Amino acid sequence: ERYQVLNQQEYAKAVSQADAGDVIVLAKGEWRDFDMVVTGKGTASEPISVVAEEPGAVFLTGQSSLRIGGEHIVVSGLVFRDGYSPRGEVISFRRSKDDVARNARVTQVVIDRFNKPDRFESDYWVGIYGRNNRFDHNHLVGKTNQGVTLAVRLDAPENRENDHRIDHNYFGPRPVLGSNGGETIRIGTSKYSMFRSGTIVENNVFDRCDGEVEIISNKSNGNVYRGNLFLRSRGTLTLRHGDDTLVERNVFLGGGKDYTGGIRVINRNQTVRFNYMEGLRGNGFSSALTVMNGVPNSPVNRYVQVDNARISRNTVVDSARVTLGAGADEERSAPPINSVFSGNLLSGLDEGTFIEVDADISGIAFDDNAVVEGKVHSAAASLRKVATEMERGANGLLYPVDPSLADVGAPRDLAPIALSDVGVDWYPKPGEDEAFGASGVVTRVMPGEDTLGQAVAAAGSGDVLMLEPGEYIANRVIAVDRTLAIRGAKSGEGAGATIRFTRPSLLELQDGGNLQLTDLEIDGSLAPDSVGNAVIRTSAFPIQKNFRVEFEGVAVRNLVVNKSFSVFVIGKGALADRVSIRRSAFSDITGTVVSAESETDDFGRYNVEYLDMVDSTFADVGGPVASVYRGGTDESTFGPFVTVAGNTFSNVGHVAAEGSRASILLHGVQRARIARNTFDGSAPMIVEHTVGTPETAITDNRFVGTAEPIVRELVHPGAPRVELENNETVEGKRP
Amino acid sequence: ERYQVLNQQEYAKAVSQADAGDVIVLAKGEWRDFDMVVTGKGTASEPISVVAEEPGAVFLTGQSSLRIGGEHIVVSGLVFRDGYSPRGEVISFRRSKDDVARNARVTQVVIDRFNKPDRFESDYWVGIYGRNNRFDHNHLVGKTNQGVTLAVRLDAPENRENDHRIDHNYFGPRPVLGSNGGETIRIGTSKYSMFRSGTIVENNVFDRCDGEVEIISNKSNGNVYRGNLFLRSRGTLTLRHGDDTLVERNVFLGGGKDYTGGIRVINRNQTVRFNYMEGLRGNGFSSALTVMNGVPNSPVNRYVQVDNARISRNTVVDSARVTLGAGADEERSAPPINSVFSGNLLSGLDEGTFIEVDADISGIAFDDNAVVEGKVHSAAASLRKVATEMERGANGLLYPVDPSLADVGAPRDLAPIALSDVGVDWYPKPGEDEAFGASGVVTRVMPGEDTLGQAVAAAGSGDVLMLEPGEYIANRVIAVDRTLAIRGAKSGEGAGATIRFTRPSLLELQDGGNLQLTDLEIDGSLAPDSVGNAVIRTSAFPIQKNFRVEFEGVAVRNLVVNKSFSVFVIGKGALADRVSIRRSAFSDITGTVVSAESETDDFGRYNVEYLDMVDSTFADVGGPVASVYRGGTDESTFGPFVTVAGNTFSNVGHVAAEGSRASILLHGVQRARIARNTFDGSAPMIVEHTVGTPETAITDNRFVGTAEPIVRELVHPGAPRVELENNETVEGKRP
Ligand SMILES: [Ca+2]
Ligand SMILES: [Ca+2]
Repeated sequence: ERYQVLNQQEYAKAVSQADAGDVIVLAKGEWRDFDMVVTGKGTASEPISVVAEEPGAVFLTGQSSLRIGGEHIVVSGLVFRDGYSPRGEVISFRRSKDDVARNARVTQVVIDRFNKPDRFESDYWVGIYGRNNRFDHNHLVGKTNQGVTLAVRLDAPENRENDHRIDHNYFGPRPVLGSNGGETIRIGTSKYSMFRSGTIVENNVFDRCDGEVEIISNKSNGNVYRGNLFLRSRGTLTLRHGDDTLVERNVFLGGGKDYTGGIRVINRNQTVRFNYMEGLRGNGFSSALTVMNGVPNSPVNRYVQVDNARISRNTVVDSARVTLGAGADEERSAPPINSVFSGNLLSGLDEGTFIEVDADISGIAFDDNAVVEGKVHSAAASLRKVATEMERGANGLLYPVDPSLADVGAPRDLAPIALSDVGVDWYPKPGEDEAFGASGVVTRVMPGEDTLGQAVAAAGSGDVLMLEPGEYIANRVIAVDRTLAIRGAKSGEGAGATIRFTRPSLLELQDGGNLQLTDLEIDGSLAPDSVGNAVIRTSAFPIQKNFRVEFEGVAVRNLVVNKSFSVFVIGKGALADRVSIRRSAFSDITGTVVSAESETDDFGRYNVEYLDMVDSTFADVGGPVASVYRGGTDESTFGPFVTVAGNTFSNVGHVAAEGSRASILLHGVQRARIARNTFDGSAPMIVEHTVGTPETAITDNRFVGTAEPIVRELVHPGAPRVELENNETVEGKRP
Repeated sequence: ERYQVLNQQEYAKAVSQADAGDVIVLAKGEWRDFDMVVTGKGTASEPISVVAEEPGAVFLTGQSSLRIGGEHIVVSGLVFRDGYSPRGEVISFRRSKDDVARNARVTQVVIDRFNKPDRFESDYWVGIYGRNNRFDHNHLVGKTNQGVTLAVRLDAPENRENDHRIDHNYFGPRPVLGSNGGETIRIGTSKYSMFRSGTIVENNVFDRCDGEVEIISNKSNGNVYRGNLFLRSRGTLTLRHGDDTLVERNVFLGGGKDYTGGIRVINRNQTVRFNYMEGLRGNGFSSALTVMNGVPNSPVNRYVQVDNARISRNTVVDSARVTLGAGADEERSAPPINSVFSGNLLSGLDEGTFIEVDADISGIAFDDNAVVEGKVHSAAASLRKVATEMERGANGLLYPVDPSLADVGAPRDLAPIALSDVGVDWYPKPGEDEAFGASGVVTRVMPGEDTLGQAVAAAGSGDVLMLEPGEYIANRVIAVDRTLAIRGAKSGEGAGATIRFTRPSLLELQDGGNLQLTDLEIDGSLAPDSVGNAVIRTSAFPIQKNFRVEFEGVAVRNLVVNKSFSVFVIGKGALADRVSIRRSAFSDITGTVVSAESETDDFGRYNVEYLDMVDSTFADVGGPVASVYRGGTDESTFGPFVTVAGNTFSNVGHVAAEGSRASILLHGVQRARIARNTFDGSAPMIVEHTVGTPETAITDNRFVGTAEPIVRELVHPGAPRVELENNETVEGKRP
């Protein structure tokens, strides 16, 4: 039977009546706040189907979700957008604990930015329970809140030995979460990792899946990852827990992006073969290939020793690192055993060590590998160096020209899955992030009261506002919820555009906002006499999208009317992909220049991924110029990254509580580069390391009348891990 | 001419054409996002008028504001509600810096909860600039965001010597702000306090104006406060800066509410006469009458010595305190001089000292005062004690029966202004806060999955949900945006109602929510394995209204699935008026019970005004049972207040970072009472005092295998200020 249903009541009735072979057709249009449930008994040849009247024309919005129970049920053609699930999942392969799906299929379904508003309110977009289910040809894009995009659950006996199939899906951009819980796929959990899942993940595309360090977290036995394509995705396919995994014929193309990784091996009987990696820049645990050291008699939630790993016939090319025995320390003291590393073709970069060895690798048998380029750690010196050109095959992948290497590296018949073969063809796959000025529209703005605010309100995303020389006064906080560049028109000589504001902030970044300020003067002298003003702040409402803020050639001054008057303050729940300050000048400021320290819960969260401060001057700033806080002991994120280079600091950081007076204050930053700065009469920089392997380099700086940097290890035993080179300390007084 | 205008365009045109004597009539209905401006040249006999077609039927909503320039302009009959001003004021007596209002009048205008969503985004509801303006018969209720309700500005010469009149207004409830900036009226600022304002504030009612320590902050010369009625308002009329103030014939009725105060005197030539105070409970700087010590040669923003104060013929009755020489310390060492304190009738309470003297009062001439009841500090022992009955006059105020006291205290002809004589008669004045169960509706709820959530969604404000015995499972976070009581039905024996939840939280408090939980069991065992879960949390969206959360007879257990699983977490920007826990039991919790520590900016903000934990048990709790943080050095708030009495703590507070392992963790709490508790094998309590005069009493506790309390002064020099009495320490082990 075929039920055409127009609303939720009709739908519920149809579901309650549906038998094997029946089809329920959802009418085109918007289905708002739809707590959609389907269950029933279909058969292999006659499933119960729930379909869209027209695929891509049925929208579930508001607080909607889908739960599937029963047997042999197929759902297709739906689009989830403009809302979020009020439950723990958007799509759940169980109706309730007692009614889990078997032989169900979800296909051609879109979930587009269907995010809980609070970044740290977690959910899964897809939770797969039961057995023999298939999730294929779906399109999942833009998850910004915490929680795995797709989780296979093994938390009850009826969910194990499940033999699910996850194939031909488009896993689109997942932005940096800035916390644990940003995996795109997770199969199992540590608690149930001793059980067999038997899930096959094949022929999917992972496009810019940057949520956290694990793109895929394998946490159960007997899974297969085959024929997937990883495009510019930060992190790795991690065999975190569970044994007997097969990883084959996958293609990783990093495009030279930071922290793009490949495959990380832990546990027993893992087979990694015929994979291709190119353009990967990850190192350490995020290398193109990582073989971990384990913990002797490891508890289930730590690191089981690698035993009987078979890593063969993989190609790694134009990539930063392969790491063997990674993570070796007092706890992780059990090196890989009974393992084989054979027939791999390896080609690295000019810089640093390409093949790194951090532990005893006598338990790995090396055979027939070839290293084309890159420095090899002495412990792996037996690896054969070869000289060969590489050329691209018809499949777009690189192969050695030398015929003697024909059987080394990934096979010639690898065929990376095409974007057009995954997801649906009726929903567009996202392009690049919108660049500043991308719309090509440039609007001239004249000086005056509130002319800037009016121009911002009228601007389109990607527009440029060109400010004529003169004075601008903002009497309202200017909301920015799109990509906007504000530039001062260059005048031959004389003054340019100067902006003053009479409210506690000049600009408020809201969800969807990106901001570039160029060649402007910003003067805080008209701001009200209240504590905590900021030239730019983030909204008190949740901000889901990560954002970019850039200053270039900007002068900011006179932020002195009261305490803690800062330039840019990033609030709780907001994450900047990048804050960049170049060729700018900041003076007479009672607060900080960039405050990214609102995540004080110590849950491993933070407010800025990349912070760059370059070629700028900071004079008479009360607080630290940059304050970045990333607390807690979680190791699931790459950032924050901080670069401070080529600047001059003068009388910076003396106003703060005893013990936190600092010119730069970094807590839990993963990578810090402080280079070629002059500090004059300023408080010392303070760098606090928490967990992980932070890299801090403080080089080529000059400290005049400024105490030397303070670097503290809060967790790691022993001396602070810091590169201190070529810094000069000179006597001097506070200017 | 009479312009009937239907929309903003017509309005703008009419204003541009209006001449003296013209009337612009705004059509009934909603005027959304109205940036209303009026200017022009009226005359005293022929003003330009802007009126509502029907008073109270013209609503300015969304992002609206009113700016008045020109001369002799009258605006009346408008209602601002359902929105907020995008500017620095809702009503501004200036159109721009160059066009300030003279002889303008705003009358019969309502501003009802027209608040910026972010509590800490400041504005004034009314900013009075220019000269000879009148603000009368207006109704201002429910300001929840930071910033003075009505400010008279003296920041430019054209705004001084202004002789404004502020009369017959209803200043309705202003809830506790939890920060500086909660004054109801401020006239001037310290910077311009040497200029004469000459504003008259008379015949207004201040009803529950509890924003902060200053109800009115006088900061300029030559102002008059006359005939006003202060009803149950916390704080004082403070003569903070500026000289030559006249405060007369005002009536303060505290109703026995905490921290209701009267008049605080600083500076020169202040006259305080014929005022009446009854039922006030403030002490220290918030006494019924406070005369401050000053700073020698005080800078303008500190405390100018009291010189030539005339305090006479005031009645203080049934009140907690009169303080002379208040605030005397090393800095404030200049006592009052050339002053008179005469003809006052003073009657205090049985408890404590009624007339307190903190400094040399030889500069005050005492004459003809009478003390009816209350203990007098020895330095004021010359005050005459009298024995007289008091009786109420026809005006409702108390007077001595003894005829010899006829000329002592406030005059017989005082006539407190009536509520019906202020504001407008077409808009209701608010009643009391809605009590739990006030609607009288009790709804029975049956056990099951999501039955509770459905019942909450269907409930009205003030309803009671009565849960039948059995198990309730919540698969969605239950939003609470109204006043709601959830009670377990008492069963003769056996188990009651047990609630489990599968999301990171069971309940989410949203704006407008109040919650009372009684006789329930809450079990966290089904919550997801993620860090930072909480049984109750506040919304990630701004919460404007203060809220109440009560537990009585509630058992909470099994919050252990991951780290930092807490019972109630109050987030940034949210302020609880009261959190109360009674006769409840908490066990197996990895986080805290009440976390009120989200205001980490150190701007003097905090998350809970009153926290009561009474007669309850806390066992195996990782974090502190209560964590309350109020940072910064601001002294504008009374709270937070914490009472922890009659509880048992067992194995509490051992899981936290070194140095903050505590069973109770209080930072910057103003009043803490920790009494009659037993601490067994728990971490010590930690109490940190910041500024002000914190009162901490730790009495009658028993510490078994628990280190003694740690009390630290972070600012105050010398030994910790704490009452430690009758505590017992016993050897013991962690249970
Ligand atoms: Ca992870
Ligand atoms: Ca104040």
